[in-house]
Amino acid sequence: MKVYLAGPEVFLPDAIDVGRHKADLCARYGLSGSYPLDNVIDPTAADASLQIFRANQAMMNEADAIIANLTPFRGPSADAGTVYELGYMAAGGKLCLGYSNDPTLYADRVARFTAVKPRGDRLTDAEGLTVENFRFPDNLMIIHALDLYGCPLIVPLTAPSDIWHDLTWFEACVKLAATRLAS
Amino acid sequence: MKVYLAGPEVFLPDAIDVGRHKADLCARYGLSGSYPLDNVIDPTAADASLQIFRANQAMMNEADAIIANLTPFRGPSADAGTVYELGYMAAGGKLCLGYSNDPTLYADRVARFTAVKPRGDRLTDAEGLTVENFRFPDNLMIIHALDLYGCPLIVPLTAPSDIWHDLTWFEACVKLAATRLAS
Repeated sequence: MKVYLAGPEVFLPDAIDVGRHKADLCARYGLSGSYPLDNVIDPTAADASLQIFRANQAMMNEADAIIANLTPFRGPSADAGTVYELGYMAAGGKLCLGYSNDPTLYADRVARFTAVKPRGDRLTDAEGLTVENFRFPDNLMIIHALDLYGCPLIVPLTAPSDIWHDLTWFEACVKLAATRLAS
Repeated sequence: MKVYLAGPEVFLPDAIDVGRHKADLCARYGLSGSYPLDNVIDPTAADASLQIFRANQAMMNEADAIIANLTPFRGPSADAGTVYELGYMAAGGKLCLGYSNDPTLYADRVARFTAVKPRGDRLTDAEGLTVENFRFPDNLMIIHALDLYGCPLIVPLTAPSDIWHDLTWFEACVKLAATRLAS
């Protein structure tokens, strides 16, 4: 069974090692992990970005499941590429699992980036836009896609010291995926 | 032909008016716009967020196309919910159109939120993670999904004065959608 390993760790300096570690954990539970950087693409090619897109999409089409690293990335929400991929896999009827290494609630995270204040029974940001406040770690579309098509978002009680390398909750997703895909 | 109107304007104080304006523009071009807030949901219900998810998904399933407002939202990238929906519609084989009212390149936007510096032939952020630098306004998965399944992301040469209410580039998407869906 193939699992697409989505997440912003492809941007880490040791991205290839992290992918190898993730794939090893998948193998330990009888799964085959597909990691975007498994695709060999010449970064200097004029159409490198399109090649990456097509290669990622082909991996997703071949996969039975996605395990998405939804740790917030450069803002209050998860990495945009990863979220796109979660939507793509949900629509494809694939098993959708995800984890975040930051347990902070979305509204609390927004407050780190902008002045959040109450307006009536809502919270608003500095631009006056409502801050979604369902006490979830991210946007409800992400949260409920996981609830309905896989398993609720897995988060630690407290963030690990190295949020980009700790794979504890990734491994929890792998275990769940292995159980679900076997049944 | 039905078009799902995705975007973070659902969080504006005048969200319902903006949706009505968008739907009116769709009607002018012979399209039917479906806007998330058309669904009547009791925000105090215990399962309000799940009701919103299900209603949005039902609208997407019924729609022939998506027009996504991909204006960056609370960070360098587009709204996570909107990006999820773009992935969902792309996988469903629907026509995918999008616009952003901010023409800034992604790497330049990241530099507003974190200290970006060169490392070798790459740019990295304050945490040492590579900043995607294909000279696109957002993550390549978003950009190429639009390229391949609809039309390249539509952006103005300069940001309008009111990025959350200016519908010039939304209307450009509506025109394109009407032409494509008619053919």
